[in-house]
Amino acid sequence: MKDAEVICPGSGEGQTIPKGGMQLLVTGSIGIDTVSTPYGRAEGVLGGSAVYFSFAAAHYVPVRLVGVVGEDFPDGFRETLKSRNIDLTGLESRQGSKTFRWHGRFHGDMNQAETVCVYLNVLAEQGPCVPAAFSDSDAVFLANTHPTLQRELLGQLSSPKLVVCDTMNHWIEGERESLLQTIGRVTGVILNDAEARQLTGRGNLIEAAETILGWGPGFVMVKKGEHGALLMTAEGPTAIPAYPTKQVRDPTGAGDSFAGGVLGYLSAEGKDDVASLRRAMVHGTVTASFAIEGFSLDRARQVGRADIEQRAEQFMRMLRLE
Amino acid sequence: MKDAEVICPGSGEGQTIPKGGMQLLVTGSIGIDTVSTPYGRAEGVLGGSAVYFSFAAAHYVPVRLVGVVGEDFPDGFRETLKSRNIDLTGLESRQGSKTFRWHGRFHGDMNQAETVCVYLNVLAEQGPCVPAAFSDSDAVFLANTHPTLQRELLGQLSSPKLVVCDTMNHWIEGERESLLQTIGRVTGVILNDAEARQLTGRGNLIEAAETILGWGPGFVMVKKGEHGALLMTAEGPTAIPAYPTKQVRDPTGAGDSFAGGVLGYLSAEGKDDVASLRRAMVHGTVTASFAIEGFSLDRARQVGRADIEQRAEQFMRMLRLE
Repeated sequence: MKDAEVICPGSGEGQTIPKGGMQLLVTGSIGIDTVSTPYGRAEGVLGGSAVYFSFAAAHYVPVRLVGVVGEDFPDGFRETLKSRNIDLTGLESRQGSKTFRWHGRFHGDMNQAETVCVYLNVLAEQGPCVPAAFSDSDAVFLANTHPTLQRELLGQLSSPKLVVCDTMNHWIEGERESLLQTIGRVTGVILNDAEARQLTGRGNLIEAAETILGWGPGFVMVKKGEHGALLMTAEGPTAIPAYPTKQVRDPTGAGDSFAGGVLGYLSAEGKDDVASLRRAMVHGTVTASFAIEGFSLDRARQVGRADIEQRAEQFMRMLRLE
Repeated sequence: MKDAEVICPGSGEGQTIPKGGMQLLVTGSIGIDTVSTPYGRAEGVLGGSAVYFSFAAAHYVPVRLVGVVGEDFPDGFRETLKSRNIDLTGLESRQGSKTFRWHGRFHGDMNQAETVCVYLNVLAEQGPCVPAAFSDSDAVFLANTHPTLQRELLGQLSSPKLVVCDTMNHWIEGERESLLQTIGRVTGVILNDAEARQLTGRGNLIEAAETILGWGPGFVMVKKGEHGALLMTAEGPTAIPAYPTKQVRDPTGAGDSFAGGVLGYLSAEGKDDVASLRRAMVHGTVTASFAIEGFSLDRARQVGRADIEQRAEQFMRMLRLE
């Protein structure tokens, strides 16, 4: 894939956001998932990185969702997204194509998904376009996809202030140079512990995060699943545990829900100084903790901002140790 | 091994301890280690669970060390122990026997030791005796050993108030009934995440800790290495991260140094309410973080109480997130 000029038709109304907040855009996968865990099985449910992200972030600010689905994408899923402060102007429904599908399984300590099968479908085709009305977005989350596509999408925004990307082992192995170019152009990187280690060749996670920080971004957040998260900035590391919960029914989307809580919080605050990043990591932790309590978006849909604030307060109280 | 009457000769002077503190006793292994990590190799160095524990705990209160070594135990090691507020009245040097030896290796993320070889030597013989002068100990740490031996040692104390045990996969597999009896008689259990899961058959660590709590102890602490620690009491869980450090040269003894910091702190405080347990877990985290910065006790020997307090304060400040 080469960097290419992308001309994007389309338009959409901006939404009212809290004063001082940022307009938040996300691009990533929108999928139809089938997931098995020791607690049951969900077949043909709404999933994908951009979806989990949007559901979490929409607690804080309206979310501009940019992605492509196939003609098989159920109307019901569209309604579910619309119900949550998520602007679908950038959701392209491509005729003749099929929606991305993922079939995964969790067992044991449920820290790692086993992919049973995956059909990229429309994700293997031309990427989505950012509608003109979204080009003024201040904050953007480039969920895991080809790093060149991440830069192309970024190139469609006029003056983003907060740009955060994720990635995965596939691109670390096969598109390292392109990925490093993307990382050099973002404000922050959010990735998991295995990816941070693989990307840097460092076994020690603090060293790994510092190494990525040295490539340009202002912050690095490392997601560690049940083990919590790590923030690295020029001021040093902040490590926090995960929210301790027995209610882990389906970890699918935990990482993207975490990113959604982080970016949603930062967008509402309208800043990304270290104190805000630390609090944002708490919000990411809490939105992720709700996401995993049910299959697909079942639990996340029941949760309101007050639930999030309450759990965030409880979590911070747990960590007040003096 | 059966529960047996143990008659223990020996005597020793009690030491002056901070007002309100508890007399702390530890029984466990005292060994000669050979360790390889990516940072180097240490051959024939002082090690063992009771030794690492004692070095950490002795920052807070004098420690009564109970254990057995062979006639090959170097005088220099004895001097090293004596230099640190560690009472060796209960250290039996058994003629005709050899000291426990362990040869281990760490690589990759250094979370797991690979045992190259182990010679139980004197540890396979009759256990140590608690000197009469130590029978009034208020606090005791029963480091990992045969659970029946743990109870025998406990039976030699007149009225201990704070009794904490560790264990390992070997006893969980082979001596489960005896281990459950020991757990039913202690105030607290400190064990690692893999052991908690294996012991309870629960993949979720919160459930695992709750299950153990249900067997009788007042608290359970789960050590998670680089991922921190979890405290479970009737009031619910407290999860904390590890102290974030790039300085991981040799993880040997991290878990026992953690336990030493916890018990040392609680013994000095003279109480084990939930607030004290939470702060004790911070101290365990910090004493462990120093232990792993050098081979054997190299780093731990350079550290003073002021260094511990300073790092504990820094760690708690990191976790003040509001």
